[in-house]
Formats: sequence, C-alpha cells, structure tokens
Amino acid sequence: MRLYTYFRSSAAYRVRIALNLKALPYEAVPVHLLRDGGEQLGAAFRAVNPGALLPALEDGDTTVTQSLAIMEYLEERHPLVPLLPADAAGRARVRGLAMDIACDTHPLGNLRVLKYLVHTLKLDEEAKLEWLRHWMGLGLATVEEHLARDVATGRFCHGDTPSMADCCLVPQVFNARRFGLDLESYPNIARVDANCAALPAFQAAHPSAQPDAE
Amino acid sequence: MRLYTYFRSSAAYRVRIALNLKALPYEAVPVHLLRDGGEQLGAAFRAVNPGALLPALEDGDTTVTQSLAIMEYLEERHPLVPLLPADAAGRARVRGLAMDIACDTHPLGNLRVLKYLVHTLKLDEEAKLEWLRHWMGLGLATVEEHLARDVATGRFCHGDTPSMADCCLVPQVFNARRFGLDLESYPNIARVDANCAALPAFQAAHPSAQPDAE
Repeated sequence: MRLYTYFRSSAAYRVRIALNLKALPYEAVPVHLLRDGGEQLGAAFRAVNPGALLPALEDGDTTVTQSLAIMEYLEERHPLVPLLPADAAGRARVRGLAMDIACDTHPLGNLRVLKYLVHTLKLDEEAKLEWLRHWMGLGLATVEEHLARDVATGRFCHGDTPSMADCCLVPQVFNARRFGLDLESYPNIARVDANCAALPAFQAAHPSAQPDAE
Repeated sequence: MRLYTYFRSSAAYRVRIALNLKALPYEAVPVHLLRDGGEQLGAAFRAVNPGALLPALEDGDTTVTQSLAIMEYLEERHPLVPLLPADAAGRARVRGLAMDIACDTHPLGNLRVLKYLVHTLKLDEEAKLEWLRHWMGLGLATVEEHLARDVATGRFCHGDTPSMADCCLVPQVFNARRFGLDLESYPNIARVDANCAALPAFQAAHPSAQPDAE
C-alpha cells in the first residue's frame, strides 16, 4: 500500500496511526503542502485525489480518499486488530467521536482555510489564532464532555484498546498544542492522549518521526 | 426511534433520507436553530448531544450523534435496504464521496460558522456569501470530478441505487441553490440530484415537507 502523506497533516497522521496499530506495512509518498504553492494542488496529486487534500491510500487498483473512509477500508480488509468495537452502539460512539474531530473541528483549521482567512479576509496573525483556538476549543470540549459522561470511556476513548476515535483525537491534540491551546480544561483528553503516546504505533506515526519531517 | 431535527439542517436532512430509504419509521423532535438564540445551544439538547449540533438519533437506550455515524448505525442495525455497496472498494468510494461533503464542504458553511463570520469577523453579507460559495464550489467540484472520471458512477453517485453519498449530496445541492451557487458546472451532480428528486424517500425528507417547515 502507498500512503500519500505530509508529516504535519493531521488527517494523514490519523491514517498512519491506524496502519501502525494494524501492523500494516506501507510506502509513504510525501506530498509537500507548502512547497511550490502546495504540491497537493498540482496535476500529479489531483490525478490521485481531485479534492487536492491529504491523505490518499493506494491499495493495488483501489484508491481511497478521506481519512475516515481509509480507516473503514482498512478495518474491512484487515480486521485483525480492530479499530471499532464489536457492538453497533459502541461502533456508533467511536465513529461519532471520530467525526466530532474530523467533521466539526479539523476542517475549520485546515491549511486552505487559514490561507483564505489571511489572504482573502486579511486577518492578522492574532485573529487567525483566535479563529483556530475557538473551533479547536469547541471540538475538544465536545469530546471531553462525551468522555467524561460515558462509562464506556476507558484508558482510551472507548474502553481499554485504541480505536478510530483515538486515531483522530491524538493528531488534533498535537495541533492544539502547536497553536497554543491550553489543554488543562480537558483532563480526560489529556489522560487518553498520554496513554496513546506510550504506544509504539502512535510514536511511529508522530510528525517528528516521519521521513519528510523538517 | 427519535430523530432530533430541524427542517433546514443539512445534516439532519441526510439522516431523514436514509431513514426513508430504509422505510424506518421515526418520531421527529424539532430543535429550532434560530429561536431563543438557538435551541440546540440550550441545556435540554446539550444533554442529548454535548456538541450542540443536529442531528441526534435515539434508539432505545442508545444515542447516536454525527449524521454519518447515524447512517452507519442504521446500516448495521437495518441492513435490508443497503446504503453501502457490498465490496470494500465500493464502500470506500461511497464513504469518501459522503465525507467530501460532510467533512470538507458542509462544516465550513454551518450556521455557527456563519455567525462567527458576521458577529466576530464583521463580514458583510456579500463577503459571507462569497465564503459560502467558495467552499461549496470547491466541494461540489471535487464530487463532480469523482463522478465524471469513475465508471462506478451510475444513475446515482455509485451505481443505480441510492447510497450514503446521495444522502449527503442532495442536501448540499439544496444549500447550494439556496445560496445562489450556479450548478451548471456540475452536470453529473445535477443529473444525480434530479434522479434522487424523483424518489419518494428524498421527497419526504425535503425541508419543505417537514412538520417544522416555515
């Protein structure tokens, strides 16, 4: 399998964790989001993903885009280390948490959105950071409340093994730290994040451990 | 089942289509997004979904949030009218298309984001509409390119039966029309949308057909 990735792409980071948890080997194909105005916007990568967004996974003749769709695909093709629980209610909870990040939090702080804020809306650095922290804070508060109120929360977002929810949460926490969001208000998230950070699968997926890291 | 919904909520509209396609009866619980500063922000609805976003589905003791997680839950509990194809590659394609809308398009035009643009960033009406059309246009162009290039596209986004991708696309097209986006550049989307509009399941889910429509 080939994964189109960039060391700091939050969505690619999710899939790297999933691949590592399932112990699936893959070839990393770096796509530099900043070089030459963004390699993801060039014809070569648009031929892979017309959405011009990372990640994309190639598996033989099959190309899959969207990080959550890739994780579901891996789950179906390689079920052995499951990233979803067995019961429908549990699966729905994990997917809901993953989507609280992947649909309602991360897309608002994506690189192309920040570019629009700065270049089209002419926001200054402080207003841009305020935007980022606002939406990240809302997203993390939602996940924190889900984790705090539900007995299904364990060492990880759902029980005591990592799931797709943790694959999404950890890269979002990485971003939150990077942009100076205070994590003290999210004790359950901080605890889960620390438990994930102790696992080799998460460590090997970390941006700083990637071949294209700067 | 009880569905927390608002007639014009794009994400609730997706789930209404899915429920109708599967012929599953449900009780609609209206949550008015504009009344009293937004009923979704009140304590009553936050007890259901701490994310304060529609939709949410209650099925006995199980509460599911996030429209795509709800559709996956319905698919697992009520597989009889499938909204995903049988093969892993096809399922990945449908999920990828659904997420092109649900992750990368719709969240940028959500009500709470528009409020931030107007109240915090002080954008005027024209700049707000420009923002909306920009992200909607990018999202629809991505889906259009996927539909145009892939032989798996049929009368609907994937083959000749409706899938989760159509459940997401139709409400996004409704929004695009509402905000004055020209759809001429998206012939495949327009064709699929017209085929969906001919089906009673889509008609009954339309905002104008809801009990809380204004």
